Amino acid sequence: MTRWKPDAHGRLMQSAIELFAERGYEATTVAAIAERAGLTRRTFFRYFADKREVLFSGAEQLVTVWLAAVADAPAAAGPLASVTAGFEPLAELFEERLELARLRAQIIAANPELRERELVKLQGLASELERTLLARGVASNAAILAAQAGLTVFHVAFGRWVEQEDPAAFRRLLSESLDELREVTAAAPRSGTQEWAPTREGNR
Amino acid sequence: MTRWKPDAHGRLMQSAIELFAERGYEATTVAAIAERAGLTRRTFFRYFADKREVLFSGAEQLVTVWLAAVADAPAAAGPLASVTAGFEPLAELFEERLELARLRAQIIAANPELRERELVKLQGLASELERTLLARGVASNAAILAAQAGLTVFHVAFGRWVEQEDPAAFRRLLSESLDELREVTAAAPRSGTQEWAPTREGNR
Repeated sequence: MTRWKPDAHGRLMQSAIELFAERGYEATTVAAIAERAGLTRRTFFRYFADKREVLFSGAEQLVTVWLAAVADAPAAAGPLASVTAGFEPLAELFEERLELARLRAQIIAANPELRERELVKLQGLASELERTLLARGVASNAAILAAQAGLTVFHVAFGRWVEQEDPAAFRRLLSESLDELREVTAAAPRSGTQEWAPTREGNR
Repeated sequence: MTRWKPDAHGRLMQSAIELFAERGYEATTVAAIAERAGLTRRTFFRYFADKREVLFSGAEQLVTVWLAAVADAPAAAGPLASVTAGFEPLAELFEERLELARLRAQIIAANPELRERELVKLQGLASELERTLLARGVASNAAILAAQAGLTVFHVAFGRWVEQEDPAAFRRLLSESLDELREVTAAAPRSGTQEWAPTREGNR
């Protein structure tokens, strides 16, 4: 499994996130990020287009790890099982990064522009999961639904993980969120057209 | 149920969408939209901040109708059943609008900026569904999961609806998508920690 290494890229990422957390995202300059990392502005721009991208470049590794796990899931795995096959390697990938992940989540939550960017990136990931499922022969609707369901489970678990202190808890939180999704979707009676639509009068 | 009426607001919306479809979104001016609707630019700006907002103002009614249905769902309805309680009034709301909805979907699909805007609006809707569920006493995780699941089902059904010709088909497509979500989430074996994580060696 690939592990996070404090090379130039990693040092810039860590410095940027620390500075965003200390001084605010708006007030932090690329020069200050480079200085804290012991590097030059020129080196910064070799890795990142701008300071915003520092917050989102880590996601590339997440996407790579997740998609590879989906592609390599056992042939017999259904659509959602293929998506959740990424949970174990993702939990491993994130285990060393709880503190940075928490700071990053706080920075993004505080800034509407960053929240929109995060949303767009997450939906990009959903589309890639969907395409990977289609390549496995999953039907179109099932692929969209499984990709979105898996992403939502991940998102809920991630939100809970960064709000607690145990780096190793991510596996358990993923598993719990998946169980909760199953409970939620199984709660209503199954199948049969339009049983989902209570009449507007009906409110026993 | 509120029905679409070709008042000034509705005429501007229809004219804008027709012109976007005919000439392209970028090439269409507010003056041209107002002219086709038989109104002035000044009237246009009484209803919309800019031409982009014409494409998204219709969503307000969708949100209002959906949230009201969730809030009014029977007390015994579970989280997802509360969310899908909006499907019947939404199907009714959309029934007269297939042609406009199709044009709108094509315009948005063709423009990355509009796609991002649509995504942000949809997630705003997910947040409002979630808040409405919380107000019904639903637990936090279940509220997020049910809101996202319901929105995905809606989104999948909507995408299929605008690609076919029967305006009345939306109900059936919603019901089918919901069944498909249940199949997808029920497919894997239930509960038991980490049965979702195949070992990296295991690939029967």
